[in-house]
Amino acid sequence: MRPGFAIFAGAANPALAAAIAAELGAEVGACLVDRFPDGEVAIRLLEPVRNREIFLMQPMSPPVNDHLVELLALADACRRAAAARLTAVLPYFGYGRGDKRHGGQEPITARMVADILETVGIARFVTVDLHTPQVEGFFRAPVETLTAVPALCRALHDRLPPGFVVVSPDAGRAWMAAEYAECLSAPLMVLHKRRESGAETRVGGVGGDVAGRPCLIVDDIISTGGTVAESAAALARAGARPEFVVAATHGLWLDGAREKLERAGVSEVFVTDTVARAANDRPGLHVVSVAPLVAGALARLLECDSTRGVQGSPRGYGG
Amino acid sequence: MRPGFAIFAGAANPALAAAIAAELGAEVGACLVDRFPDGEVAIRLLEPVRNREIFLMQPMSPPVNDHLVELLALADACRRAAAARLTAVLPYFGYGRGDKRHGGQEPITARMVADILETVGIARFVTVDLHTPQVEGFFRAPVETLTAVPALCRALHDRLPPGFVVVSPDAGRAWMAAEYAECLSAPLMVLHKRRESGAETRVGGVGGDVAGRPCLIVDDIISTGGTVAESAAALARAGARPEFVVAATHGLWLDGAREKLERAGVSEVFVTDTVARAANDRPGLHVVSVAPLVAGALARLLECDSTRGVQGSPRGYGG
Amino acid sequence: MRPGFAIFAGAANPALAAAIAAELGAEVGACLVDRFPDGEVAIRLLEPVRNREIFLMQPMSPPVNDHLVELLALADACRRAAAARLTAVLPYFGYGRGDKRHGGQEPITARMVADILETVGIARFVTVDLHTPQVEGFFRAPVETLTAVPALCRALHDRLPPGFVVVSPDAGRAWMAAEYAECLSAPLMVLHKRRESGAETRVGGVGGDVAGRPCLIVDDIISTGGTVAESAAALARAGARPEFVVAATHGLWLDGAREKLERAGVSEVFVTDTVARAANDRPGLHVVSVAPLVAGALARLLECDSTRGVQGSPRGYGG
Amino acid sequence: MRPGFAIFAGAANPALAAAIAAELGAEVGACLVDRFPDGEVAIRLLEPVRNREIFLMQPMSPPVNDHLVELLALADACRRAAAARLTAVLPYFGYGRGDKRHGGQEPITARMVADILETVGIARFVTVDLHTPQVEGFFRAPVETLTAVPALCRALHDRLPPGFVVVSPDAGRAWMAAEYAECLSAPLMVLHKRRESGAETRVGGVGGDVAGRPCLIVDDIISTGGTVAESAAALARAGARPEFVVAATHGLWLDGAREKLERAGVSEVFVTDTVARAANDRPGLHVVSVAPLVAGALARLLECDSTRGVQGSPRGYGG
Amino acid sequence: MRPGFAIFAGAANPALAAAIAAELGAEVGACLVDRFPDGEVAIRLLEPVRNREIFLMQPMSPPVNDHLVELLALADACRRAAAARLTAVLPYFGYGRGDKRHGGQEPITARMVADILETVGIARFVTVDLHTPQVEGFFRAPVETLTAVPALCRALHDRLPPGFVVVSPDAGRAWMAAEYAECLSAPLMVLHKRRESGAETRVGGVGGDVAGRPCLIVDDIISTGGTVAESAAALARAGARPEFVVAATHGLWLDGAREKLERAGVSEVFVTDTVARAANDRPGLHVVSVAPLVAGALARLLECDSTRGVQGSPRGYGG
Amino acid sequence: MRPGFAIFAGAANPALAAAIAAELGAEVGACLVDRFPDGEVAIRLLEPVRNREIFLMQPMSPPVNDHLVELLALADACRRAAAARLTAVLPYFGYGRGDKRHGGQEPITARMVADILETVGIARFVTVDLHTPQVEGFFRAPVETLTAVPALCRALHDRLPPGFVVVSPDAGRAWMAAEYAECLSAPLMVLHKRRESGAETRVGGVGGDVAGRPCLIVDDIISTGGTVAESAAALARAGARPEFVVAATHGLWLDGAREKLERAGVSEVFVTDTVARAANDRPGLHVVSVAPLVAGALARLLECDSTRGVQGSPRGYGG
Repeated sequence: MRPGFAIFAGAANPALAAAIAAELGAEVGACLVDRFPDGEVAIRLLEPVRNREIFLMQPMSPPVNDHLVELLALADACRRAAAARLTAVLPYFGYGRGDKRHGGQEPITARMVADILETVGIARFVTVDLHTPQVEGFFRAPVETLTAVPALCRALHDRLPPGFVVVSPDAGRAWMAAEYAECLSAPLMVLHKRRESGAETRVGGVGGDVAGRPCLIVDDIISTGGTVAESAAALARAGARPEFVVAATHGLWLDGAREKLERAGVSEVFVTDTVARAANDRPGLHVVSVAPLVAGALARLLECDSTRGVQGSPRGYGG
Repeated sequence: MRPGFAIFAGAANPALAAAIAAELGAEVGACLVDRFPDGEVAIRLLEPVRNREIFLMQPMSPPVNDHLVELLALADACRRAAAARLTAVLPYFGYGRGDKRHGGQEPITARMVADILETVGIARFVTVDLHTPQVEGFFRAPVETLTAVPALCRALHDRLPPGFVVVSPDAGRAWMAAEYAECLSAPLMVLHKRRESGAETRVGGVGGDVAGRPCLIVDDIISTGGTVAESAAALARAGARPEFVVAATHGLWLDGAREKLERAGVSEVFVTDTVARAANDRPGLHVVSVAPLVAGALARLLECDSTRGVQGSPRGYGG
Repeated sequence: MRPGFAIFAGAANPALAAAIAAELGAEVGACLVDRFPDGEVAIRLLEPVRNREIFLMQPMSPPVNDHLVELLALADACRRAAAARLTAVLPYFGYGRGDKRHGGQEPITARMVADILETVGIARFVTVDLHTPQVEGFFRAPVETLTAVPALCRALHDRLPPGFVVVSPDAGRAWMAAEYAECLSAPLMVLHKRRESGAETRVGGVGGDVAGRPCLIVDDIISTGGTVAESAAALARAGARPEFVVAATHGLWLDGAREKLERAGVSEVFVTDTVARAANDRPGLHVVSVAPLVAGALARLLECDSTRGVQGSPRGYGG
Repeated sequence: MRPGFAIFAGAANPALAAAIAAELGAEVGACLVDRFPDGEVAIRLLEPVRNREIFLMQPMSPPVNDHLVELLALADACRRAAAARLTAVLPYFGYGRGDKRHGGQEPITARMVADILETVGIARFVTVDLHTPQVEGFFRAPVETLTAVPALCRALHDRLPPGFVVVSPDAGRAWMAAEYAECLSAPLMVLHKRRESGAETRVGGVGGDVAGRPCLIVDDIISTGGTVAESAAALARAGARPEFVVAATHGLWLDGAREKLERAGVSEVFVTDTVARAANDRPGLHVVSVAPLVAGALARLLECDSTRGVQGSPRGYGG
Repeated sequence: MRPGFAIFAGAANPALAAAIAAELGAEVGACLVDRFPDGEVAIRLLEPVRNREIFLMQPMSPPVNDHLVELLALADACRRAAAARLTAVLPYFGYGRGDKRHGGQEPITARMVADILETVGIARFVTVDLHTPQVEGFFRAPVETLTAVPALCRALHDRLPPGFVVVSPDAGRAWMAAEYAECLSAPLMVLHKRRESGAETRVGGVGGDVAGRPCLIVDDIISTGGTVAESAAALARAGARPEFVVAATHGLWLDGAREKLERAGVSEVFVTDTVARAANDRPGLHVVSVAPLVAGALARLLECDSTRGVQGSPRGYGG
Repeated sequence: MRPGFAIFAGAANPALAAAIAAELGAEVGACLVDRFPDGEVAIRLLEPVRNREIFLMQPMSPPVNDHLVELLALADACRRAAAARLTAVLPYFGYGRGDKRHGGQEPITARMVADILETVGIARFVTVDLHTPQVEGFFRAPVETLTAVPALCRALHDRLPPGFVVVSPDAGRAWMAAEYAECLSAPLMVLHKRRESGAETRVGGVGGDVAGRPCLIVDDIISTGGTVAESAAALARAGARPEFVVAATHGLWLDGAREKLERAGVSEVFVTDTVARAANDRPGLHVVSVAPLVAGALARLLECDSTRGVQGSPRGYGG
């Protein structure tokens, strides 16, 4: 491994930063990330970065705008202090759902965020489970997109009842649900939201019947829990066994999300630690760390000559 | 309408360029688009462009690389001759399927093409039915994405048997099939390709049973015809009435595609003229022109102060 | 005046936006500026912007990062909807104090913000009383910096006791205090903060003695009120008459600032409305609107051929 | 030599790529360069490039647009897979003749191609015998222009009859012909094409008379063979011995070129392998490989600290 | 003609700026172009430029670096004062001879100057008789290259003795000499400088013999006069009539150039006023103004819709 | 220290370049920096730069425009010859006083120069005592700003009479004077220039009375000597002891400056060698070399992993 790298972290998830650094046998770099009285971001590096390879760790979780500007200012400080190269590690890429315009009158915030991150001099990106794979193309710089699905599947493996079905809440997530289905050797069902009637979710899919079967509902993000709760309700109406397991990479857990899931019959939830979790977790929440996954990617980026095999090859999956 | 615009066209679809110009009460600008003996693109503008608003019309259809370089060279000629602004009109955006990487070892050609089009100075884009809506975000410049679905639906309206079902060949196209279903007030079925078994397409979806019912298979592009033929076969196995109607915006009609569809039981096909069609069309092929649609967009771009209502508003659909 | 412009405003100061629009005989453009449940900025233009000259009004006041991202997203939406040109109107430029590095380990956030504003396509800027005049040079795009000093002086003119002295809290603001002194034909005193002893402010300056005289303390921003309160205390120690008047362009009024000033003997405060003010103002607060000043600048930017005399000429001052 | 480089090659000249790699003791990197059914370029790297110095070998020979887009897509794939740096090796730079505008209504395709190559992230270029030396300046990135003239002269040395004259077909190539003349210690004659009479080439020059003397006609490119054939005819009319030898760096050999030269009395032709040669070569064709020349340049670019003497110094010539 | 333009001029050639402005019925804009005591360029616009089309007139004649920086600073002042667009009018483009590298260890200053002119925001260029036509391609922005050859030919027409020959001092200028020959219906002779012997110029060319004939020696620039003097000497040695006429677009007239020409037998010299001429002209110097030529180009750039026929068409020549 | 760097120097201060190189145990790279007869800059590198870390040493002293263009051309030559990275070492940054606009009609030349230096590919900057600290923010690239104040203070330490006062000529320089005062443990006085009366300087400040005390007048630049002379006169009027000592980082010594200072009662002057000094120095001039300071910075930039402690930390001061 090449000498001379440092990991700095914004305020969004210091525990994950520490875990990643520990995996690499390092510590998070000393750095003040604070606010001035008027709320402006204050940054002060407390160790030198000159000619060092810098990783800036910051999931873009709520409060997303503050976390974004912290990252921008960290990057500016490092670039001006003559860092060799800046790589942003974004375990959760916020604004990823802003990947298209509706009716031609909206921004494409995912591209906009990609552009401003590159403007401050970030030259490479590492991220986990983007909302759509196209988001990579919003960046001009290289993006290494990791997937937490194999790690989640390993954790799920012994907790799932026999005969379960993997369920995607809508067609847009079908590609990710298919990865779960493949990893877990289970049938896949894709739900479909009927636009005509506004918000009703209808059960369907190629996996046949869900009647009497347990379901694993999967998604990339749990935000308000609304999507999962609607899916559970539709599955229940279709006769599925009403004890749902849920898996998702990013758990934002906005106000009331946890309760909403419980009311909908979700008994167990598997997420990762890309987003910092609140202290008082409810029972039934299983958190799988992405630290080994991310640290492995950083280690590969630090190798002078990469010989570990093709990046993202199928060999890395589901082991 | 503001004076001082010109439309130049590459070699890909002169008939459509002429039709669009005619809708605007204009003619396609005089311009030599040729090849040197070694195959290099030769361009010579035969009328002045200085301070004029320029539209460059070129679908990126096969031979796609030649048509792409023609467009680039046209743009360079116009920019250097002091055109006021360049707008590329790409009724068919080639390389649109190159919108993501598989396994991290591929290019994202859709973004790459967007970048080089902007490099030569093209400042705005008009296109029709992109492969995925995210492609807009690969451009930094404004993209006005038009949809031919309402026009195709108007043409389909009287040719469809009662009780028909709209079928999407896979989940990735479901959003476009939903637009057809809404326009035609028909139920929607989304097929699903099982990855495990390689290439088999399985019938499924929320619209219930296809047994005995006629099907409208829709897609954005007909290339080799393989996707549509597989869908028709799967639908036939599921008992659908074996006289399929097909609708798609872009008809590339690669070698043998037409025959493949006929063998699969497709009796009628509706496409637009975004791609130039071969002379000897088979019966059952209906071509709807996008010239009015595109010309309307250009007219709006030429207005000094746009007051025609919000661009892309629902009012413009299915009238 | 050229037809075809629109003013959109972020959430930071809708009242000022409305006042500026009214001065121009217009209304603020219809536009949704909202938050998704996870706090991400949601923007939707509700009227067309194609080929229109767009002014985006947003002071970068607290919560500054949210207001900054709103502005970025508004700009992205307008650019992608083919606006003719974007001008950001920033009556208060936040992060302006981040104009230099201390010890080489900090960002220069003022330049960073300038860069990202230009990245999203903003081509011109209008601002009021920057923290230092050098901030203009952080922008590549044209910046029209207006000054509210003459308007504040007109409001102060009849409220100041005879024999008063204009006081700058430190040398860095001396240039702005000199403008007040000139406008009001009053002597100037510059205080000096002794670094040796940490934070003590010492009275000094060329204006002679403050003993027994009333003082007008001026600054560009009132944030926590700390600087002004220290200055008042130092002046009081030096024998100044303990009924201070304060003038500043931007009133952030962070928690407790108003009370701190009252305790320090400040009886009257003159600020502008660049930052939205809280509802429950204390007595003694005079708010001068910058709407006519800003609207005048926008009107000049809308003229096809500017003939109103040299911008920023001395004729415009102190009238 | 620094570890960690790879050479990838497009489809234009795999034999030359292999020869260059062999000179460096390496192999051409495994990489799929293919076409989708619609003719779009398909690229898939089959070995890792992360943090490696990458050389992309592709002469821009016919079909030039396909070869150009292959190169662009290869570069995009490598950049996104986090290659350390991309160097394009263009033994033949196509579009080099598009280096100026005629009448102000044409593109400058040479600059345009330079711009788009840089847009995809290529940071350095190696090329052989550009059409005009000014083309280097169309690139912002460093270009190392090698010359095959010394190698060709070494091959020519024993095959030329005594008393021969070096002939340049027109004034624009005189600088290159002078290099041959110097290398071979022979007199130089520059032909002049009379514009008045369209296409007639007239013999002239400072070398005195060609009557009865053998001639070596030199050029940078043999394309259709027309220029050389006209020159031979003019020389024959002027009494030159009608057994011409021809030397050129790049042999495109467009349809019928070889026959045209034979008919014009050309008995022997010396070219390099910058462009892949067809299988069925006629007798009298001598192909000199540029592999040692190019490999030497790549070796110098791979040295951490270059100490081999000034690049392009006269010592390297004519040995 | 569109209202709202202004012409500002650096210090290099105020007389030409005034003449161009007068042709357009305008005056040169009021503007201070000065030096601070330390020699730094001081610029102050004395009239508004906001939303106006700006032409910046400055030949890059000696002292070239000062004139270059004046132009850059003028452009910066205009851009920051919100000019609509900047067009640089460079009747003489200095550093044009720096268009290629020798031995790979030199700058390409012509491209470098093009880049920095574009960096300060100049969007279009107008120039006269570039050293090589490729220089246009060093600019990304549109360049309108005018030629003074027809105007010089009109002036020469009645002053040339019968039977004269047009002579190019070397092969690199042959394309320009051919334009004179065509305009004046005279034969062309191209001289050739023998590299072997250092600096000796040898007479040659397709025009047959110069013995006893008068010669018109043409070049783009007269700098030290050395090239012309050598050519005259070579022609004299070849028996030409020793009363030479010289024509060139740009007369730099460096120290002693005029005397050197007289000593070489040059009796009459025709140049333009692209470079400001010294006061005490010798007899035999004829200066043709490019003011009408340049003003015509500016008028065309000011037209909203250009309908004057193709730019640079043959109709414009030699009338 | 990493192998493979080279220092090239323009013509502005070869002695300083040699001294810096010697501190690093190296020599200044062989390189021709000359003028063509027309005054255009001629550059030719005489040793290889490929893959080497390059430092370009050039203070931007008078003639500033020539020295600026030399630096630009040097950078272009090095970049095109494939240097690994370019760092400009600007011991004196000319045009630093052009850091703001007055009245909105001027350029911001400091930003303009920063932009064009970055345009030619310079990636890092090292400079000494900028005119205002904000100038750093005009650069996008990292700038390491060194300060010569501690070194000057060490030289001053034994030459100053007891009881002396540090005097800043105006408020704008107060921050730098405060550094001297702190380093030398002396009181600080800030003079104030009264705008009303044009140019009169008035004595004031927090340090109490200057009556009978010796004064050290400090500034960043001595240009014409006017500012210092005025300050001395004002101090003399206020009763200061009329034997002034002057310290400044950059001594431009424009015509008559030295004499002006002597006439004003300045007996001793301390400057550095950032600007090359004339041969015939007057007595009383003490020149402190910045070579060790600059060489130390370059050594840090050459370290692969910087571990020498935080850059610019207080430990480095006043030792």
